Amino acid sequence: MTTDYPSAAPDERATELARVRAVHAEQVRRGLSLDMTRGKPCPEQLDLANGLLTCISVADVREAMGDIRNYGGIDGIPEAKALFGDYMGVGSEEVIVGGNSSLALMHDSIVNAWLRPVPGAPAAWGKLPNIAFLCPSPGYDRHFAICESLGIEMIPVAIGADGPDMDEVEALVAERSDIKGIWCVPRYSNPTGIVYSDDTVTRLATMKTAAPDFRVFWDNAYAVHHLTEQVRPLRNLLRACEQAGTADRALMFGSTSKISFAGAGVSVMASSPANLSYQKKAMSVQTIGPDKVNQLRHVRFFGDLDGIHTHMRRHAEIILPKFAAVSSAFESLLDAARVATLSRPEGGYFFSLDSVPGTAQRIVDLAAEAGVKLTPAGATFPYGKDPNDQNIRLAPTLPGKAEIAEAMEVICNSVRYACLETLK
Amino acid sequence: MTTDYPSAAPDERATELARVRAVHAEQVRRGLSLDMTRGKPCPEQLDLANGLLTCISVADVREAMGDIRNYGGIDGIPEAKALFGDYMGVGSEEVIVGGNSSLALMHDSIVNAWLRPVPGAPAAWGKLPNIAFLCPSPGYDRHFAICESLGIEMIPVAIGADGPDMDEVEALVAERSDIKGIWCVPRYSNPTGIVYSDDTVTRLATMKTAAPDFRVFWDNAYAVHHLTEQVRPLRNLLRACEQAGTADRALMFGSTSKISFAGAGVSVMASSPANLSYQKKAMSVQTIGPDKVNQLRHVRFFGDLDGIHTHMRRHAEIILPKFAAVSSAFESLLDAARVATLSRPEGGYFFSLDSVPGTAQRIVDLAAEAGVKLTPAGATFPYGKDPNDQNIRLAPTLPGKAEIAEAMEVICNSVRYACLETLK
Repeated sequence: MTTDYPSAAPDERATELARVRAVHAEQVRRGLSLDMTRGKPCPEQLDLANGLLTCISVADVREAMGDIRNYGGIDGIPEAKALFGDYMGVGSEEVIVGGNSSLALMHDSIVNAWLRPVPGAPAAWGKLPNIAFLCPSPGYDRHFAICESLGIEMIPVAIGADGPDMDEVEALVAERSDIKGIWCVPRYSNPTGIVYSDDTVTRLATMKTAAPDFRVFWDNAYAVHHLTEQVRPLRNLLRACEQAGTADRALMFGSTSKISFAGAGVSVMASSPANLSYQKKAMSVQTIGPDKVNQLRHVRFFGDLDGIHTHMRRHAEIILPKFAAVSSAFESLLDAARVATLSRPEGGYFFSLDSVPGTAQRIVDLAAEAGVKLTPAGATFPYGKDPNDQNIRLAPTLPGKAEIAEAMEVICNSVRYACLETLK
Repeated sequence: MTTDYPSAAPDERATELARVRAVHAEQVRRGLSLDMTRGKPCPEQLDLANGLLTCISVADVREAMGDIRNYGGIDGIPEAKALFGDYMGVGSEEVIVGGNSSLALMHDSIVNAWLRPVPGAPAAWGKLPNIAFLCPSPGYDRHFAICESLGIEMIPVAIGADGPDMDEVEALVAERSDIKGIWCVPRYSNPTGIVYSDDTVTRLATMKTAAPDFRVFWDNAYAVHHLTEQVRPLRNLLRACEQAGTADRALMFGSTSKISFAGAGVSVMASSPANLSYQKKAMSVQTIGPDKVNQLRHVRFFGDLDGIHTHMRRHAEIILPKFAAVSSAFESLLDAARVATLSRPEGGYFFSLDSVPGTAQRIVDLAAEAGVKLTPAGATFPYGKDPNDQNIRLAPTLPGKAEIAEAMEVICNSVRYACLETLK
């Protein structure tokens, strides 16, 4: 039976469930061991940046703007600020180039706000009775983990093709002064893959917020991670906020974790002069500064923004067939059953699969029985709880294309299995 | 006049002051531009580690314990944990190997304690009405800056040849439960150069503290930075605390900032199982993990602890003549005046100069007039305030030997000048 399950007769579904169960039993017997859980680049992607290991010499580190091997400088070397200013679409004076983790820049930005009032804040967030963040969901579990660790209330907001549901966002931030932030992955959103529309960006910049110290945490993790020739434009949040007179609202982040080496890249933060000055003051107490030698490696290896774009086309060549394997397996093995939808990402690292409500956990369990590890059901929602139990994130970059095909057979059958149980 | 000023007759001192003023005027006219402010390694020291730039290959990063270019692992690669466990005198399972800044490990340890109760704590420090740290002084300004940024009350404690005045320390921690920590640089203390005696370490480990969550912040920044053949032993704090049943009290830190590259080294933290588990949990929310590629560079470059010791003998060869230049200038130009004492460091990065009370600021100003920049007077004390205005830190590693000799002429004459004004 390949026609759609919802409109099939109950006895047809029962027969089909028996078939699907037999397929599952056979898959369990095969005993695969595949992992589709994390958005990790594959070794071939990492190989693209091996030049980083040897691209600078003694002459490089001693020349230019002072000896970068030594102490000194909190916001990055000038060459790196120029390159990553371009990368973020802002001036070199509008960025801080940091260490190997943009997650740390985001985490520390919130912790700083917790301990000392940010520009425009009536008080440090930690001094207030309640702090809440808007969490467009499904979203990125590590954003949510930061909130959870600080006891920040997370308010899920629906996310659609153009970004978060802005009617909902505007209503909430206008009303509640304890809502201090919103998490955004504006391009190739994790996991739905959507790109924020100009209108969404404009509304985020211009909306009235009850909190004078409201911040948009703009995690542009996939800024150049395109998989199509035609690239959807994304309005620059900092410019939009400046125009709206809300420049301090914009905290933009990026990194080369999925450009160079995932664990040994460079991070960047772009914001208003007041926010940068606040951040640099905090950083100068926290740390001796970023690893400037690794920043220079990145500058020398990529050269300029064009170099980064060229490099990313090589990434796309490697992962595009993997993404295609996911899409085509879904189309041939599951689509007709009409119990699940799959996102159509034009870039980034993920697929988002939505199935019949109440089945996601069961699907993940069934796939695990058959040796395919998926991101835990609910991981893409605050507190790990998907209210509809229907979203699953698929991460196809790390496994090989053949493994993905095998994994997708298991996943598609697991979806059929769980949905038929639910429809029964 | 080379005899001692305090016992000279007033008119002798007046004549001498006139002579010293003339020398000062001449020095001002010479217009030097020398900097003795920060404990930075000189380029020749950094050159010793240039092999780090090219010591690992593609084969290295892909072999062994997983692909270190990728995401994964929060507490360091196994090879680095083995090396830096040895370095800290503990097992590899007792360390976290971090990024390029041990200051960040210390800062973040305190911020974590601020936000979430540490093992044994009745409450997060940020929830309590007052938090205080003991600050053996003179000490390290960046330790004090962390306290100041969080509003932690700093209580200065005298530091002598064996470490902090333990009678004072014991009395304070026994009485006040708001005293949660003490800053220690146990070997070649910044700036006095002393090494904590076994008795001091034992007393820090065994003393009764009113706070159940008291922590010793053990910044062993100069663990292997010896300048003598004979090395004074230092008792291992973690072992001492374990023996005393206070293992969670010990937070030990180290880094290669003054071994490899000051800005691109590796940091390490050693502590009890409970503290490490607490710390790793916090780090897994904060960051994707440390730069594992740079950790492997350090492992390959140094090989083992013997490799580090051999490397440090090369550092000593470079900086020993500079330290000797400071000592001999002091002896020939100032000692006889009996208005100042100079420390006799057997390692580390600093000299500590104590002059007649009430003169340090004036000395720093006079030296600045003559083109020699010194660490600001008071910087070695909490809140930047030396109660006796008599301590000055000298950092002789960065300038050349000839520059140091010139700078010391200025410094010694400035001391004479300021002290004669005061004695007048």
